[in-house]
Parts: sequence; structure tokens; C-alpha cells
Amino acid sequence: MHSFNELITQFNQEFNKQHFPEQPASLYNAASHMLSIGGKRIRPVLCLMGNELFDTLHPDAFSVGMAVELFHNFTLIHDDIMDKAPIRRGKPTVHTVFGDSAAILAGDVLLISVYDRLNKVQSKYKQKIISVFNKAAIEVCEGQQLDMDFEGMDPEQVQYNDYVNMIGLKTSVLLAASLQLGAIVGGSSEGNQEHIYSFGKNIGIAFQIQDDYLDAFGDPDKFGKQQGGDILVNKKTFLLLKALELCNPAEKTALKELLVSSPDNKVERVLDIFHSCKVDVWAEKEKDRFQQMAFESLENIAVLSSRKKPLMELADYLLNREQ
Amino acid sequence: MHSFNELITQFNQEFNKQHFPEQPASLYNAASHMLSIGGKRIRPVLCLMGNELFDTLHPDAFSVGMAVELFHNFTLIHDDIMDKAPIRRGKPTVHTVFGDSAAILAGDVLLISVYDRLNKVQSKYKQKIISVFNKAAIEVCEGQQLDMDFEGMDPEQVQYNDYVNMIGLKTSVLLAASLQLGAIVGGSSEGNQEHIYSFGKNIGIAFQIQDDYLDAFGDPDKFGKQQGGDILVNKKTFLLLKALELCNPAEKTALKELLVSSPDNKVERVLDIFHSCKVDVWAEKEKDRFQQMAFESLENIAVLSSRKKPLMELADYLLNREQ
Repeated sequence: MHSFNELITQFNQEFNKQHFPEQPASLYNAASHMLSIGGKRIRPVLCLMGNELFDTLHPDAFSVGMAVELFHNFTLIHDDIMDKAPIRRGKPTVHTVFGDSAAILAGDVLLISVYDRLNKVQSKYKQKIISVFNKAAIEVCEGQQLDMDFEGMDPEQVQYNDYVNMIGLKTSVLLAASLQLGAIVGGSSEGNQEHIYSFGKNIGIAFQIQDDYLDAFGDPDKFGKQQGGDILVNKKTFLLLKALELCNPAEKTALKELLVSSPDNKVERVLDIFHSCKVDVWAEKEKDRFQQMAFESLENIAVLSSRKKPLMELADYLLNREQ
Repeated sequence: MHSFNELITQFNQEFNKQHFPEQPASLYNAASHMLSIGGKRIRPVLCLMGNELFDTLHPDAFSVGMAVELFHNFTLIHDDIMDKAPIRRGKPTVHTVFGDSAAILAGDVLLISVYDRLNKVQSKYKQKIISVFNKAAIEVCEGQQLDMDFEGMDPEQVQYNDYVNMIGLKTSVLLAASLQLGAIVGGSSEGNQEHIYSFGKNIGIAFQIQDDYLDAFGDPDKFGKQQGGDILVNKKTFLLLKALELCNPAEKTALKELLVSSPDNKVERVLDIFHSCKVDVWAEKEKDRFQQMAFESLENIAVLSSRKKPLMELADYLLNREQ
């Protein structure tokens, strides 16, 4: 079995090759630009780890990992257009450099190429693999649509459970499916597939709660982002939605006014309310709750505990970071 | 064997069902809107005809036909965004009704659902089917990009052969692949697959030449569109590109000035130049040339001539219409 870092290295050896022909350059340069922006390649490594939990690494896990990573990059290109995001990972987004039309098409080409990779799968479970992948792919799109729907709503109108559902679809199901797809390649039983999927889904939600927490309360030097970035743009986060539930009427009025008026000391004043209604304490507990559910699912997977060590380490790395 | 109209009816019985869940409504209403705009469903019928040329109809041909039609609808949604087209078939386009973001996502969901259909294929040739489909899908995207690239160029800079190549990618390869995919389902040999592909590709180009011809010279009452619609928007067509090659220096200067100045009698004056340099005569010959190549390929398919009758009839219907 391999460590997380060893698997990243192995995957990148396969992934960091030229994916596209040279012409039409206006199309393929746009697609390649997205891949060159990089990323942690967590999802394909989850495929490899899902495979290794049950069996030695199979080439199919690399094909599926490629597919998942290309799909993730496709979503980033299209999401950045929809969100009008100028920068990703410190680099200009695809549509900023190449225009919206080429960016739409570059995303389309990436999405089609996903299925070239899935079509390479030799496993007798190929039909199941495409089916599990497609379910997650559709759910990611639904999550993005729900996110946009919520964007246009008053934060008080967004129900907490609907928000958790949206985050689950938008960010967690692909992590969960990546693990499950690897498990299928590794010959896992249906029951174990469900457990590993549930592990991935809950880790994903815990990770998002932590991400929101660090944006508000993290050390900006360690976190590498401006403190309160989400607050500045009135982003609907776990913290904001829950704070509106927890705070007293006076705080609620103040918080809602801050969302509209955006004074210079907005971040400081919102954080004061967050502290005062103890949404920071709530967030840590909520993250632990999802983390706990994840670990229970991991516990339930019927393989030797020693095989689960890399997944435990990965969860620990993702959920106990300060940056 | 079935006629074209019988096959349309059979296909529509399968296709005109609810394709999507109800929620999120903002996403799926956008996707359903596109399907409700309708269309001739020519591509899936080509799948069925490709199948029936070699064998009795197989359920796989319907799965592949669904995939091809959903893919075609995906391209229409995204192309309409890129082209900022407000109307399609007399109805408002998806992005006009639902906004660009929901339209991008609705296209994405359609594209993913294409592979749900392909994943249903039971044929032992499934890998080949996905591979042939994906090659065409990528080429359609390349064609759209080349079309946009040409859009920004001076018409004289666009080489005729590059234009034919672009039209082939943008509109013909999906017709050709539809026939080939059906042929694969029908158990056709590789050689016959090549012939039927070539038939479809050349029919597609002949059809496009005729479409350009009818826009300029057709009877607007029969054609159902404003005469000279392409001329009014300076669309690069077979006629315009070839006219710039054929006409004398004085006509060329006049034509180029008309492209810039757009006077009230623009259509009339451009048509005068088109007639004078005989690009109408050229277009009829050029259409015949591609039609001839198509029929040679059809001739070369090693099945009884009587089986080719529906394809002959379809070609005749497509290429000898006045509307």
C-alpha cells in the first residue's frame, strides 16, 4: 500500500502529459490552461486509495482517476464563468483569458474527454462504474444550480438542511464517488461501497464547515487567504446561516444590516456577532459530528484496520489543517 | 424495413417522455425547454436506418439514437449562448428564458445524460460505440470553435478548404457518426462502416451548400425564411467565400464595401454580384459534387441495393427540397 503523497506522485506521472491535440489552438489552449492551474489532485488519489483498500492498484483506477480529475476541472471552468470569478489559485480563470465562448467549449471538450477515460476501463464492472460516476456528475450540476438559486435568496429563507444538502451535492458527492469508484475497481462488495461512499460524503461536509470556519476565525498568515473573505462578499456559509438562527433579535437586526450596508469594519463587526452567539463553538461541534459519522462508516468497512490507515491519515490531514 | 416517417414515429414514442426529475426546477426546466423546442430528429433516425441497413432493429439503436439527439440538443443550447441567438425554431432560446448560467448547466446535464444512454447499450461493440461517438462529439466542438475563429476573420482570409473542413466538423460528422453507430449496432463490417460514414459526411456538406443556396436564391414563401438572411448579417457562407474568389476586381471591391456599409438594398446588390460571378451555378455544381461522392459511398456498401432504398429516399428528401 502507498501513502497519500506516493499516490499523488504516481497519479501526476500519468496526468501531467499533453491531453489535447494542438488545433484548434483557441479551444485546446483554453482547456490546457485550466489543467495548468493545478490543484491538489485529491479526487483521483481517493480513487487510488479506494482501490488499494481492497486490492492492489489496478490500471483502471488510474483511468477512473483521470476521468474524475478531468470532470472536476470541467466544473471549475464552467463554475468560474457562472460566478464571474477572475482568479483561481492566483492565476486568471479560463474565461478571463480566452473569453466566455471558448471557456464554455473548453469545458465541454473536457467533459467529453472524461468519457474517453471511462471508456478505457477494462473491468467487468464498467457499466456500474459509468453509472456511479454519472450519478455523481449530475448531482454536482444540481448542487451548482442550488447554490445559484440560494445566491438569489435572502439568507433567512435558506433552510439549514437544504444548505447542507447543497454543499453535499456540490462538493462532497464527487469525493465520495471517487472513493466508491476506486472500491469498485478493487472488487469491493456493495455494502463496503456504501460505507466508503458515506465516509467520503461526511468528510467532505466536515471539510467545508472547517473551510468556512477558517475563513472567519483562522490565522490569515497560515490560511493564506484574507480573513473574512466570505463575510466581505456576503457569501452564504454554514456560519452565517447558523448565526442567523442562534443570535438574539438585536444581533440579528445588526447582522442583517451589515449584510446590506457593508461598512469599513464589516468583518470585525460580523465576527463580534459570530463570537457572541457562539457560532464558532457550534461550528467546531458540527464539524466533529460529520467527522464522527465519517469515521463510523470507515469503521464499518469490512477489511483489516491496518488497510484503513492511509484513509485515516488523509482525513486527519484534511480536517486538522490550519491552512 | 421501415420508412423514414415510420422511424421518426417509433423514435418519438421513446423520446417524448419526461427525461429529467422535477428538482432543481431552475435546472431541469431549462433542459426540458430545449427538448420542447423540437426538431426533425434526423440524427436518431439515421441511427435506426444505419442499423436497419444491416439487420433488424435492435433496442441498442434506440439508446444510441437518444444519446445522439440529446447531444445535438446540448450543442444547440451552448451554441445559442455563444452566438447570442434569441430565437430558435420560433421559440426563445434557453439562455433567453433562463439566463446564461442555467443554460450552461442545462447543457452540461444534457451532455452527461448522453452517456447514461450510451451506458445502456448491451452490444459487445459498446466500447467501439462510445469511441466513435466521442470522436464525433469532440469534432463538433472543434467545428464550433473554428466557426467562431472564422467569425472574427476577414472573409478573404478564410480558405475555402478550411471552411469545408469546418462545416464538415460542425454539422456533418454527427450525421455521419449517427449512421455509423447504427451500422455498428447492426453488426456491419469496418469497411461498410467507413462507406456509410462517408455517405453521411458528404450528404451533410451537400445539404449545407443547398441551405446557403436557398437562403440566397430560394423562394422565401417556400423556404420559410427571409430571403438573404445570411447576407444581411454578413454570414460567411459557401456562396460569399466562393464569390470573393470568382468575381472580378470591381465586383470584389463592391462586395467588400457592401459587407461594411450595409445599405438598404444590400441583399439585392449582393445577389446581383452573386449572379454576375455565377456563384449560383457553381453552388449547384458543388452540391452535386458532394452528392455524387455520397452516392458513390452508398453504392460501395456491400448489401443488397433494395436495402439502401430508405437512405436514397432520405438523401433525395434532404437535397431536393425547396423549403
